[in-house]
Amino acid sequence: MTLDHGDPGDAPSMPAPTAPIVNPVRPSAAEEARTVAAATNTATLASLSEDGAPWASFITYGLLDGQPVLCVSRLAEHGRNLTDDPRASVAIVAPDLPADPLAGVRITLAGVVERPSGQEAVAARDAHLAAVPAAKYYIDYSDFALWILRVRRVRWVGGYGRMDSASADEYAAATPDPIVPMAARAVTHLNDDHADALLAMVQAFGGYPDAIEAVCERADRYGLDLRVNCPRGIARTRVGYSTPLNSIDQLRAATVELTHSARAALA
Amino acid sequence: MTLDHGDPGDAPSMPAPTAPIVNPVRPSAAEEARTVAAATNTATLASLSEDGAPWASFITYGLLDGQPVLCVSRLAEHGRNLTDDPRASVAIVAPDLPADPLAGVRITLAGVVERPSGQEAVAARDAHLAAVPAAKYYIDYSDFALWILRVRRVRWVGGYGRMDSASADEYAAATPDPIVPMAARAVTHLNDDHADALLAMVQAFGGYPDAIEAVCERADRYGLDLRVNCPRGIARTRVGYSTPLNSIDQLRAATVELTHSARAALA
Repeated sequence: MTLDHGDPGDAPSMPAPTAPIVNPVRPSAAEEARTVAAATNTATLASLSEDGAPWASFITYGLLDGQPVLCVSRLAEHGRNLTDDPRASVAIVAPDLPADPLAGVRITLAGVVERPSGQEAVAARDAHLAAVPAAKYYIDYSDFALWILRVRRVRWVGGYGRMDSASADEYAAATPDPIVPMAARAVTHLNDDHADALLAMVQAFGGYPDAIEAVCERADRYGLDLRVNCPRGIARTRVGYSTPLNSIDQLRAATVELTHSARAALA
Repeated sequence: MTLDHGDPGDAPSMPAPTAPIVNPVRPSAAEEARTVAAATNTATLASLSEDGAPWASFITYGLLDGQPVLCVSRLAEHGRNLTDDPRASVAIVAPDLPADPLAGVRITLAGVVERPSGQEAVAARDAHLAAVPAAKYYIDYSDFALWILRVRRVRWVGGYGRMDSASADEYAAATPDPIVPMAARAVTHLNDDHADALLAMVQAFGGYPDAIEAVCERADRYGLDLRVNCPRGIARTRVGYSTPLNSIDQLRAATVELTHSARAALA
């Protein structure tokens, strides 16, 4: 469900595409959430205090099949909270928050925490240590316990106007994007040295034949997010690769192919 | 209350001082919390979902007398949550998180949110806009509302083993540290160019006459946090100025005075 914000009267509007967006495929909310979760090792936990009030606290985590693995002390308030009521959620903010914080990417994973046992406890310990090496100094203290957040509900916010929810099953089935965390240098290179190619892409495939400038804002496994400058204003659009990528090594060939086919279509 | 962590058998222990720590004064938990709150404009809100489960979500905030001023949409889950139940808390992480995340500084401010009215609503709007300039694009949308978190309980964690609570009154009466956010360059200069002076300080005033090295880790309005290397191991101690500082301009004179009096005491 998308709801419009109430209009204060001077909201900038985005010019609509005047041609079809040929391949608008993009990551699902579940994939976006898995990508954010895999990008860092710190989060904020919301747990319930003794009186049922919500308690926000900084935590570290590792991931076991996308489920956050926490290591918290029962001497800390959040540790006592989890013991008393397993309902919990974590908010994770993608690294490199932009100057306008609400333009950044963040997720909430909500569910219930459980103490892992048996082989899962071993795997959870390894997952936490892999993500938080300093945990080796306290993970075996008797007051620390591992908790796995069994994710039941996922909310992803990708910046202004980009948001969606995902179910537990969708989240569990998704995988982190292999391109997003590696693509910063390639995106800079595209913008610095291949602005003409990006412009051809949005004119041919992005729905904006009147574009006069195009800037790549992100590359992911399915395609490129582009900001378009056209005489009618500033828009954002999408240009997808012919096939999804599995590795950053494939990004160059995919963008070269897009450039060639865009120029052929415009010729 | 301080509780010891359960000992897994190989915990490093810190050598005790062998002389009095002459002036161990340091910021209170309330002052530390005010300093963290003033250092950034992003936090994580914990609110209560319809079913009473805790919901963690990224937010921006400004400060009105230290109370977080949020601007959230009622179309967002956290906006609906605050409308339905005013109990809330925010976790704020100090900027420049160290490589070991749990060595970093963070706080939780807990209480209840209220919609400000009258002159306070004007002041709250100004406070939010001052901290979050991009809010000018949406603060007047009809679905956005300002909320002030009336802080009733404060928890500060200053890293491993440094933590304390503060009451609402203590938090309200405290002020942010004027030195901490400005002192990075001065601390680097002390360590790079005045290691001998720091060593004299910890030998004379910091309780470690057997110190062989001292590194300044932080300067605040009351004094310096120092890491001490002595033949018995690594310790942390405190050297306070003769009087608290009001401005970063006073830091140089305060450390020069400490150096002179330390050398006189050791002579």
